[in-house]
Amino acid sequence: MTDDLTQIGANAKQAAFQLANLDTETKNRVLNTFADELLRNTNKIVAANQADLKNATDLPAKFVDRLTLTTERIADMAAGLRQVAGLADPIGNVDTGFTNKAGLMIEQRRVPIGVIAMIFEARPNVSVDASALTFKSGNAVILRGGKEAINSNTALVNILRSVLKVNQLNENAIQIIQDTSHEMANQLMHLNQYVDVLIPRGGAGLIKTVVQNATVPVIETGAGNCHIYVDQTADAQMATNIIVNAKVQRPSVCNAAEKLIINANAAEKLLPKIAQALADNGVELRGDDRSQQIVNSILPAADEDWSTEYNDLIMAVKVVDTLDEAINHINQYSTGHSEAIITNDYANAKKFQQLIDSACVYVNASTRFTDGFEFGFGAEIGISTQKLHARGPMGLNEITTTKYVISGNGQIRQ
Amino acid sequence: MTDDLTQIGANAKQAAFQLANLDTETKNRVLNTFADELLRNTNKIVAANQADLKNATDLPAKFVDRLTLTTERIADMAAGLRQVAGLADPIGNVDTGFTNKAGLMIEQRRVPIGVIAMIFEARPNVSVDASALTFKSGNAVILRGGKEAINSNTALVNILRSVLKVNQLNENAIQIIQDTSHEMANQLMHLNQYVDVLIPRGGAGLIKTVVQNATVPVIETGAGNCHIYVDQTADAQMATNIIVNAKVQRPSVCNAAEKLIINANAAEKLLPKIAQALADNGVELRGDDRSQQIVNSILPAADEDWSTEYNDLIMAVKVVDTLDEAINHINQYSTGHSEAIITNDYANAKKFQQLIDSACVYVNASTRFTDGFEFGFGAEIGISTQKLHARGPMGLNEITTTKYVISGNGQIRQ
Repeated sequence: MTDDLTQIGANAKQAAFQLANLDTETKNRVLNTFADELLRNTNKIVAANQADLKNATDLPAKFVDRLTLTTERIADMAAGLRQVAGLADPIGNVDTGFTNKAGLMIEQRRVPIGVIAMIFEARPNVSVDASALTFKSGNAVILRGGKEAINSNTALVNILRSVLKVNQLNENAIQIIQDTSHEMANQLMHLNQYVDVLIPRGGAGLIKTVVQNATVPVIETGAGNCHIYVDQTADAQMATNIIVNAKVQRPSVCNAAEKLIINANAAEKLLPKIAQALADNGVELRGDDRSQQIVNSILPAADEDWSTEYNDLIMAVKVVDTLDEAINHINQYSTGHSEAIITNDYANAKKFQQLIDSACVYVNASTRFTDGFEFGFGAEIGISTQKLHARGPMGLNEITTTKYVISGNGQIRQ
Repeated sequence: MTDDLTQIGANAKQAAFQLANLDTETKNRVLNTFADELLRNTNKIVAANQADLKNATDLPAKFVDRLTLTTERIADMAAGLRQVAGLADPIGNVDTGFTNKAGLMIEQRRVPIGVIAMIFEARPNVSVDASALTFKSGNAVILRGGKEAINSNTALVNILRSVLKVNQLNENAIQIIQDTSHEMANQLMHLNQYVDVLIPRGGAGLIKTVVQNATVPVIETGAGNCHIYVDQTADAQMATNIIVNAKVQRPSVCNAAEKLIINANAAEKLLPKIAQALADNGVELRGDDRSQQIVNSILPAADEDWSTEYNDLIMAVKVVDTLDEAINHINQYSTGHSEAIITNDYANAKKFQQLIDSACVYVNASTRFTDGFEFGFGAEIGISTQKLHARGPMGLNEITTTKYVISGNGQIRQ
């Protein structure tokens, strides 16, 4: 592999033309072979990962955990590849078809996007997940992972590329940039000639940098300042269960709840119980004056708390008088990821679902379900928080586009 | 109206929340009233347009024609508004719905995007067309037209806003920026806080400026370097009719054909006939050596001809030996708008449709059909030549997005 980005781009474009016309059976066979070869090379992958871990001594434990590849995690990646092989291939589907007044038969046919670039951080499994999804959907991928995982990512990608080669396919369907400098990432953000879409996956800082700098089209993913609103009629036990689950089950991820908004008519009765359950799970609560008056242990929230994604065992609490106040607050501070209402009021449930302007709007369920696997997509390339192209969990279909294929018999326009 | 862009953005956002929840019947009634009021104010509109035309004395005749509003053109705009009123409202449609393994009912519901900005050039009818489509689809619109049409655009928008006011709707659903400076357009391209998508409509220069400068999401429209490939088995008369239609019927628009690629086995027989028909219609032909050897009157083409969108009675001609050579040439030089093959060969027709990477790929029909009205969308906000979000003619559906609305009964994630 080369680190000349123009060459990488041209190679990807070339590979994309081959990929766009690959039949589903071949793609599935190759995906299953990807899985076989990851398993067969487990020791090699673990060894490469060890090299990364040796360099990671200064990094926080949470980060090291994300970076670590074990036999079990490699088996999970292989299982993920087989799952993608088992998914329906969206390519060639006809989304709509009709005949126009001139008698032209017009079909909107699903086709690959072309070249997808991904900039991501510590988790090496992203190399495999992203490669599986882009390959199945007929797209070439250019991967740019973090420097902390470069040995692991390279080992994984080399295994996939060797499978492509053995199957007489263009290896450049999957490429990884070896140079992990910011300069190279910046070049990738401006590779308009070759990159059809750039998908950043990582922390808020990475995503902000990409959105503000890239001239190639970007799908913004991930930032999640998720809210749960407890309505007046909420069931106390259900509210507590959902809030604890959404906050505590995996606090580091984007679909974890960060804010609790509670109706004043429910707060006196429910907030002490919810606060106690959260405290029992090690959650620090920060709140407005009214919440502090109800539960003394709640610390004061600062203005910036309302817009902060903690990714940690912290939650901010606000008491509101009406559903409208809750909706306005959420629409003002949310990142548009996932929000939930806990209620037994039919009209309020409908109103919340109608007026909240987020990718996923829940009634009586945990925000933690915003996930490609939980949605049943079989995989996930990220969670889009923008409104163009894809919104919410992105599976195979979301990394395709369409073209109109039109069949006539000599029609000219009048 | 104000020219403080932040205020315009905030006003639009505010209006968008009201629009998102407007029922279809109200929207249709207002659209029909838009039409009534345009007709009733025809004299006022023509007078405003006269002011623009008085300032347009230095502009080319083609430009003045686009700028001119007549009683007939105003009636056409009104008819367009009634047509949009008659279209199905996409808002609230459920694109997909399913129950996941946890028992959550998940619906992907179509919702407005929010705030759409449009930067456009001379045609004042764009103000009305764009307002109609954004209003029907529940989006607020911020219009920024060219300075040459500012009086016409303002008169039109003021009529629409007065209808909104009379109907007790937020007037700021439709706003036009009075300051037509480049500085103000540039500010609009960076109004990320309020603008959900920016759609430029105009010449290649405008679109390039927007794509290279905007930090708000952009839908790239319009640039069309359209190709027609005449295969070995093409019917001579059909090929001639389609090429003349695609080149001559309206040469200034983006779906007009700019390039003729012809198979060497058909060129000797067909090219003289096609060239004569084009010459009879005033078309200047520029070609490669092989085409010049067949038709002496063809002028030599320069390298840049292959990538030029003439928007004029000029066409470049290239002779190729194979379908593959034609496909490779087209995929290299096309803007990804519309391409056509003229053939009687089934396999070649399928191959062309499969391998050409453009928004619209025709067999035996004129590229001039790439148009929202011709496709039966009832209207058109532009033709997308990018791959994200929308590709090809964009009607109502293409200026909406979706959100997932999820109904549970206490589900938490395991």
